[in-house]
Amino acid sequence: MKGNVIVGQSGGPTAAINSSLAGVYRTAMDRGAKKVYGMLNGIQGLMEEKYIDLSEHIKSELDAELLKRTPSAYLGSCRYKLPGIHENTDVYDQIFEILQKLDIEAFIYIGGNDSMDTIKKLSDYAIITGSEIRFIGCPKTIDNDLALTDHTPGYGSAAKYIGTCVKEVIRDSFCLRYDKGVVTIVEIMGRNAGWLTGASALAKGEDCSGPDMIYLPELPFDFEKFKNKVAKLLEKKSSVVVAVSEGIQTADGKYVCEYGTSIDFVDAFGHKQLSGTASYLSSYIAGELGCKTRAIELSTLQRAASHLASRVDILEAYQVGGAAVKAADEGDSGKMVVIVRQSDDPYQSATEVKDVHKIANDEKLVPREWMNKDGDYVTQEFISYVRPLIQGDVSPVMVDGIPRHLYKPEEL
Amino acid sequence: MKGNVIVGQSGGPTAAINSSLAGVYRTAMDRGAKKVYGMLNGIQGLMEEKYIDLSEHIKSELDAELLKRTPSAYLGSCRYKLPGIHENTDVYDQIFEILQKLDIEAFIYIGGNDSMDTIKKLSDYAIITGSEIRFIGCPKTIDNDLALTDHTPGYGSAAKYIGTCVKEVIRDSFCLRYDKGVVTIVEIMGRNAGWLTGASALAKGEDCSGPDMIYLPELPFDFEKFKNKVAKLLEKKSSVVVAVSEGIQTADGKYVCEYGTSIDFVDAFGHKQLSGTASYLSSYIAGELGCKTRAIELSTLQRAASHLASRVDILEAYQVGGAAVKAADEGDSGKMVVIVRQSDDPYQSATEVKDVHKIANDEKLVPREWMNKDGDYVTQEFISYVRPLIQGDVSPVMVDGIPRHLYKPEEL
Repeated sequence: MKGNVIVGQSGGPTAAINSSLAGVYRTAMDRGAKKVYGMLNGIQGLMEEKYIDLSEHIKSELDAELLKRTPSAYLGSCRYKLPGIHENTDVYDQIFEILQKLDIEAFIYIGGNDSMDTIKKLSDYAIITGSEIRFIGCPKTIDNDLALTDHTPGYGSAAKYIGTCVKEVIRDSFCLRYDKGVVTIVEIMGRNAGWLTGASALAKGEDCSGPDMIYLPELPFDFEKFKNKVAKLLEKKSSVVVAVSEGIQTADGKYVCEYGTSIDFVDAFGHKQLSGTASYLSSYIAGELGCKTRAIELSTLQRAASHLASRVDILEAYQVGGAAVKAADEGDSGKMVVIVRQSDDPYQSATEVKDVHKIANDEKLVPREWMNKDGDYVTQEFISYVRPLIQGDVSPVMVDGIPRHLYKPEEL
Repeated sequence: MKGNVIVGQSGGPTAAINSSLAGVYRTAMDRGAKKVYGMLNGIQGLMEEKYIDLSEHIKSELDAELLKRTPSAYLGSCRYKLPGIHENTDVYDQIFEILQKLDIEAFIYIGGNDSMDTIKKLSDYAIITGSEIRFIGCPKTIDNDLALTDHTPGYGSAAKYIGTCVKEVIRDSFCLRYDKGVVTIVEIMGRNAGWLTGASALAKGEDCSGPDMIYLPELPFDFEKFKNKVAKLLEKKSSVVVAVSEGIQTADGKYVCEYGTSIDFVDAFGHKQLSGTASYLSSYIAGELGCKTRAIELSTLQRAASHLASRVDILEAYQVGGAAVKAADEGDSGKMVVIVRQSDDPYQSATEVKDVHKIANDEKLVPREWMNKDGDYVTQEFISYVRPLIQGDVSPVMVDGIPRHLYKPEEL
């Protein structure tokens, strides 16, 4: 490389997003970049000229290893949507001016759907204006809803965390006996795509029967059918555990959580903020069946639990970061790195690049045939798909009993 | 030992309670017990003559290792309170008849305050009736509220989980920027005792500033003071993280969670079921300060997260189980095993036995001097107390990416 590289992180964090950052840094340095800058809080921070020189932060091999094990976005993130190119070119001119000043050759953006929209627009603008800066997207999202890639870095670690926690919750749920049984509802992230909720099936194994029902947001939720199935299960077993996506809706398009309290807050991309699905279903079942119920929200730990990261996921995230820099260095722009699965067991994968125009703003959902006929469980195909992605562990670097992270001094 | 041993588990489960069960089994076999029975669902199951022969379940060294790594109570638990001896002797006669039929020499009960009440009453009844069966209590509770023991098995693993998760939540909270900042409220178990909530301070270290405030249930909670402190912190930092006990109350004795929704369910011991403290405080702060807020309940995973158990805790739980059998074999009855701390760093401890009459129904709270003057943080003494208890890890036995547990075939 002749010039410099700048990298940013965008959207919700994951346990693997910093491993991609480590991969970008390593490959950029290996390929001769003079400087590797990190935008603080993504494109939004860049517009305020907020960035750091990564070599002042990743000073040793140990720092790089700690970074791979640090949750959240090391550089900070944003949810900023660029205006359409034809709406406002001022923003673009401002960004390109900063990039030119920093002698940027490659712009790497680690993120999900909304972030790929940023890569698409910036690379389009480069073509229009004849800029030679290359823009490459690096996939990241626990939601696993990006098109054209077999899966996204971040998903495997979240799936491993969900499978493990749901198994521990199931074990716990059998501990105490209740006259009419106990029903536990576990609420899992995933607004529109059920990839995370489906991963609760990983709890199933020789030593655990797994959750009894799994409801993905891809199919309409029916209160009556749900209640009847729970009642039937309670005739046979003392504890019933149900995994539900935060985004399940009834056939009329109303979110289940809206039946309880209505939350009207909407983020910058127009996404409704959801929560309370488990809590509502838990009081619904208690009211209808008179049994003990419990609501558990796995909460932000689904994306932050680096202490239970998947080795496959952390390594792939690192590879994908490196592949993004390599693609830019070899002349690509307006592309996103994708993961191609070559075999399930033993698992093998490789990276390729695909046109970001075919990815941005598209949402990959769980296919109907990976759910059972009743729409209340995932099939073996789903499990075979996700199982390889949770393999292996990344031992946290434990200091005084607690995992150590890489930190930005200004955050303390 | 000449006769048989019977062991039961009672009260809420922990990540370490099965390690104590493994310790009881091992020592009983080593000391020549013919049979080691396990009551299913504690004393309640025993009264229905529900028990198992543990040698049919712990068949190998591997089984014993898996048992130590299995959350929840392997034998099942109960929350049954024996009537006063002078109220009803039928129940006692029934229990002793079953124990005599099984040729029981030692009765070991693993549990917390309420379980020690059971040991107290049964050992008293043995004295009254001249029975030679010995009754020994084995401490267990994540709440760490038992008197006379330095700490209780189960607490260390829960503290390690809480410290780690709060640190991951803090890291995550700095990821996205919000105009008026973001306030995250983390709700932690502990109805009356703040030992678990105080453990959130373990998140603090060279790489993390820790939670900004910690509210224990031992001191009255003041909404005004809380709001003002949050507002002041938001002037200096973009993210504020607060750890609160589920049991915090205002000066008039009203639970903070009761300000939101009132939950009137009361368990067999007269304990109110609490939840919603974080959720209420989160909407309170959003309303008062207009900033982004987030509520996180660490939920039952605090007691079930074997995947992040503390090695010190799991080993001590095992030792305490063994010490209970040893005490019974050497003629003790009406006693509970306690842990005596010999030094902090390097940490050393030993076991002794104490009169259960001095323990049952007593609750050990966090001393006032281990909280700061404002009552919104724990002191260094608190941290020095808990730090040794979270040291070391117990690697889960990972099978296909998920921790393996020991299971009862009938539970599948």
